[in-house]
Amino acid sequence: MNATDKQLKNNIDEFVNNDATLDPSSFVSFSNSKKVYIVGSSPDIRVPFREISLSDTPSQFGAEKNPPVMVYDTSGAYTDPTISIDIREGLPALRTKWIEDRADTEILSGPTSIFGHERQVSPELEKMRFNLNRNPRKAKAGKNVSQMHYAKKGIITPEMEFIAIRENQRRDSMSELLQTQHPGQNHGATIPQVITPEFVRDEVARGRAIIPANINHPETEPMIIGRNFLVKINANIGNSALGSSISEEVEKMVWSTRWGGDTVMDLSTGKNIHETREWIIRNSPVPIGTVPIYQALEKVNGKAEDLTWEIFKDTLIEQAEQGVDYFTIHAGVRLEYIPMTAKRMTGIVSRGGSIMAKWCLAHHKESFLYTHFEDICEIMKAYDVSFSLGDGLRPGSIYDANDEAQFAELKTLGELTKVAWKHDVQVMIEGPGHVPMHLIKENMELQLEHCDEAPFYTLGPLTTDIAPGYDHITSGIGAAMIGWYGCAMLCYVTPKEHLGLPEKEDVRIGIITYKIAAHAADLAKGHPGVQIRDNALSKARFEFRWDDQFNLGLDPEKAKEFHDETLPQEGAKQAHFCSMCGPHFCSMKISQDVREYAAERGLTDQEALQKGMEEKSIEFVKKGSEVYQKV
Amino acid sequence: MNATDKQLKNNIDEFVNNDATLDPSSFVSFSNSKKVYIVGSSPDIRVPFREISLSDTPSQFGAEKNPPVMVYDTSGAYTDPTISIDIREGLPALRTKWIEDRADTEILSGPTSIFGHERQVSPELEKMRFNLNRNPRKAKAGKNVSQMHYAKKGIITPEMEFIAIRENQRRDSMSELLQTQHPGQNHGATIPQVITPEFVRDEVARGRAIIPANINHPETEPMIIGRNFLVKINANIGNSALGSSISEEVEKMVWSTRWGGDTVMDLSTGKNIHETREWIIRNSPVPIGTVPIYQALEKVNGKAEDLTWEIFKDTLIEQAEQGVDYFTIHAGVRLEYIPMTAKRMTGIVSRGGSIMAKWCLAHHKESFLYTHFEDICEIMKAYDVSFSLGDGLRPGSIYDANDEAQFAELKTLGELTKVAWKHDVQVMIEGPGHVPMHLIKENMELQLEHCDEAPFYTLGPLTTDIAPGYDHITSGIGAAMIGWYGCAMLCYVTPKEHLGLPEKEDVRIGIITYKIAAHAADLAKGHPGVQIRDNALSKARFEFRWDDQFNLGLDPEKAKEFHDETLPQEGAKQAHFCSMCGPHFCSMKISQDVREYAAERGLTDQEALQKGMEEKSIEFVKKGSEVYQKV
Repeated sequence: MNATDKQLKNNIDEFVNNDATLDPSSFVSFSNSKKVYIVGSSPDIRVPFREISLSDTPSQFGAEKNPPVMVYDTSGAYTDPTISIDIREGLPALRTKWIEDRADTEILSGPTSIFGHERQVSPELEKMRFNLNRNPRKAKAGKNVSQMHYAKKGIITPEMEFIAIRENQRRDSMSELLQTQHPGQNHGATIPQVITPEFVRDEVARGRAIIPANINHPETEPMIIGRNFLVKINANIGNSALGSSISEEVEKMVWSTRWGGDTVMDLSTGKNIHETREWIIRNSPVPIGTVPIYQALEKVNGKAEDLTWEIFKDTLIEQAEQGVDYFTIHAGVRLEYIPMTAKRMTGIVSRGGSIMAKWCLAHHKESFLYTHFEDICEIMKAYDVSFSLGDGLRPGSIYDANDEAQFAELKTLGELTKVAWKHDVQVMIEGPGHVPMHLIKENMELQLEHCDEAPFYTLGPLTTDIAPGYDHITSGIGAAMIGWYGCAMLCYVTPKEHLGLPEKEDVRIGIITYKIAAHAADLAKGHPGVQIRDNALSKARFEFRWDDQFNLGLDPEKAKEFHDETLPQEGAKQAHFCSMCGPHFCSMKISQDVREYAAERGLTDQEALQKGMEEKSIEFVKKGSEVYQKV
Repeated sequence: MNATDKQLKNNIDEFVNNDATLDPSSFVSFSNSKKVYIVGSSPDIRVPFREISLSDTPSQFGAEKNPPVMVYDTSGAYTDPTISIDIREGLPALRTKWIEDRADTEILSGPTSIFGHERQVSPELEKMRFNLNRNPRKAKAGKNVSQMHYAKKGIITPEMEFIAIRENQRRDSMSELLQTQHPGQNHGATIPQVITPEFVRDEVARGRAIIPANINHPETEPMIIGRNFLVKINANIGNSALGSSISEEVEKMVWSTRWGGDTVMDLSTGKNIHETREWIIRNSPVPIGTVPIYQALEKVNGKAEDLTWEIFKDTLIEQAEQGVDYFTIHAGVRLEYIPMTAKRMTGIVSRGGSIMAKWCLAHHKESFLYTHFEDICEIMKAYDVSFSLGDGLRPGSIYDANDEAQFAELKTLGELTKVAWKHDVQVMIEGPGHVPMHLIKENMELQLEHCDEAPFYTLGPLTTDIAPGYDHITSGIGAAMIGWYGCAMLCYVTPKEHLGLPEKEDVRIGIITYKIAAHAADLAKGHPGVQIRDNALSKARFEFRWDDQFNLGLDPEKAKEFHDETLPQEGAKQAHFCSMCGPHFCSMKISQDVREYAAERGLTDQEALQKGMEEKSIEFVKKGSEVYQKV
């Protein structure tokens, strides 16, 4: 599909800062890809996949049909040509019926948050306000609407069934060849051959996985975060005081999902946080996370010591009623841990952590996040917001990795996990940060131990501090490793980390780097069928099916662009050689010859080969010469 | 130093293809860096380092002096403003006296290789020929001039002393703070606190490390490859039938060393291989490796089956007399292993491996590389060329990783290692390739076992096949891991891998990615002092010394460029905030406050803190407000 085929009512100039429209490139499907749905037990459980069609194997290599490869698809309706996109309308609310059917929620007459109400009625905001034609929803009194609550009661929700279908790699038409030869090493994960809805339910009930799915974000396509599932990645977006508009942030969100972002965190700290978030959520097919303390701080003009539980509570409700799917809450920053950071190389680098540290020191009290933790749980379960328990004391440098402050906080996060679970509130745990390779495993092991296997969600970690400008790579290494060890979600890092605000190209590079890390981890853990895509691509490479090789890659456009730089001619896409060696000197080609030679003569049996090769060597010389002339 | 300060007699238009000069950017030192030398036991042992000077800590953070950081420097004379560069003259031959002093070599009357002689006298080549005013050198009859031979005899060569000085991280002026808090996990490596010349000698004698240093490459600055030393990286350059000129390849070599390439392999397969190589070697401060079979194949017009031992032998001598420091030789591709590749997804992907496979099948014989291995050793030891025993059967896809063919060959490489050592010829072993994370360790362990700890030198490995265009990253992950496990040198992969020929920017990205992998591995292994650079950078980051942060990074230019994209004003380099959060919301700043607060009040003692904080909280509120106004 081409972007111009799609009805793009995406001009939001008049609403948002008069400065941008959604870039049509966010809508363009990848070449030879189409959106397909697998339908579940009811017709409204329609699980999206991207189907990549492949060309036939060239005749000289056997002329076989290559079945299409179906891959996990995070891009939502944007890549479905049958759905028209109008970001002023938002995405279709596909979960509404499921939520209604549970009959445990009520529609409010409007936002119950004081701040949310103010923003809704303020006339000055009219031009930038998203025009949502429905009111927020909340659990009925005494009800708990979390997926964990249903799971513990033995209920398989449509969300769980959706996820079960989504998590299985489509192996239907793949030959035996397209499997792995070596079992994965899963570090204690228990990954089944086939993901069933019941398995999803059981993992959520056990707390080993979460489904971030606020009842006020019915637009989201259900996904799961847990170490017995595919490793997920998160992309951070968000404006700051220094730049970027609402439309740019919506743009980045759509862009993130196009490249494979599984969730998006809106870390905005500038003005109009509320409105930016609304636009993002209404248009997001993936769960949205936030750090509510950022906005709470704006409400007290940046003075951390002026923060109160009441302001924070109102912010939680405000955001929960907008549909935020998970909240980063730094409730583990306890008063007694703060002095442990004084001798650090880089102190406290988490923004949320430093805000709470400042508050704690100013008041000489435990933070209201800690003391009101059960109150927070009450809010979370009324909207099904998941906890992402923040690591406010994470290390900000290799030097500070795995220190006392970090692990003291981790232990507290483990205690809080159990409190949240008592309320059937879903929890994941945030992790570092900056950790040299040999200290990564300890992070994972202690997290599993202290937090009773609640999903781990780490930022990288960066494995060295000496490469500003390349921290997607320093951290991609750590991310792949911790993903292998059992980390459930990896928060991306872009090349601009520590230096500046990521632009679209940075977001793309960050996402692809983290898709690599996540997939490398899935391969190493041995998720069934994940190697199909590698194998299909390798087979295409071996058979010189260039376009298939590009299209099976994580970034088909970049691959094609690079190929074209050296061999721009269209004919080169069918060439049986590549630019590295040129036409007369290609190891892949020679290797094909070896295989053909062996195959034609039935030489797969080594016994036969060793006996019979002498006589055949003469034939080979003849054939060999011919082979070279063919090229 | 500025490029224009340097006497650049680098116009080689008239010699080389009339199309290029060396780009002055290859000569520009990094900002605030200068070339320094540490002199050894004799004045001609001058070991280069790059000294990065740092600014003082701002007064509000303690106003301390920050000592300069000295880092390993591969860039040779190009970044020494006192040496004038003329690529027609080549680099100074700094090792000549050391070689002469050993009195075990003789100067030949000219190339003894038939091909080498032809190229030297051919009038057509005059315009592109490097004008070397000296004749090749060879061991006197009966002599062995390998560093291993000296080492086994207990001789510490100047090369070994040079290396000992070079390998030690300069810790002289660093405070205790600039160390690591956690010991490395070295996987059986035995890394001393201080590298002594005797340790270097012992490691070389044991075969656990090699010093690639052909007596005909006296321009090289000695370096070592072994798992008890810093992890090294190699950059591949080389033209192919499809593109790039001699001058472009020289340019890439210089460019590679500027960014930190420890060795360079010239993989040229096009015309004028001999002349290209001469230009590269004469101008290279780092060891040069080649794959001689590529050139041998050119000599038989690309017909693998026409290769003979005589042609190959003449090629070895030709290249040894030019000064190639290590040869990749695929002597482990044995006849019986070839059919093991027939069932592979991607067959034989090593060019050298596929050439030899074709030869073996055509002749139904073991290859001449295997049958003449001792003859090859005789040549190697007469010039001190090191073996890089090629993994001709390495996997070309995740699917083929760690298979029978690969490990059968590895075992043979182990046998050949012992043969080479019998001749006191230095050996390293090449490794894969494409390996998922959970299979990497087995590669390293089997290599150490079969090859008796000879240094391992791997290409990546790529940990997934689904990201063409990003294979520097898929492989950077694997490279960091195998480096940690004990791999001694990592062959870089550029973003163009599998797609096209790397340009300068690709080379830069490939090198930086691999410097990251190597350094991450050094950190994890616990090489003494390697963390100094991380710590110095983290400290600069924490203290908002932006320029120091850039300059301590692997790519200062990229870091500065990224920073300037968001905050271009010069004042922003002194700003006590960064673009991520803006001036009023900075966790680093808040964290500074916490530290100052603790420090001013002597609150490093936690006991005291917990007792005394209540009263002090009031003070903090006052101070906190002030702190925010300061920004």
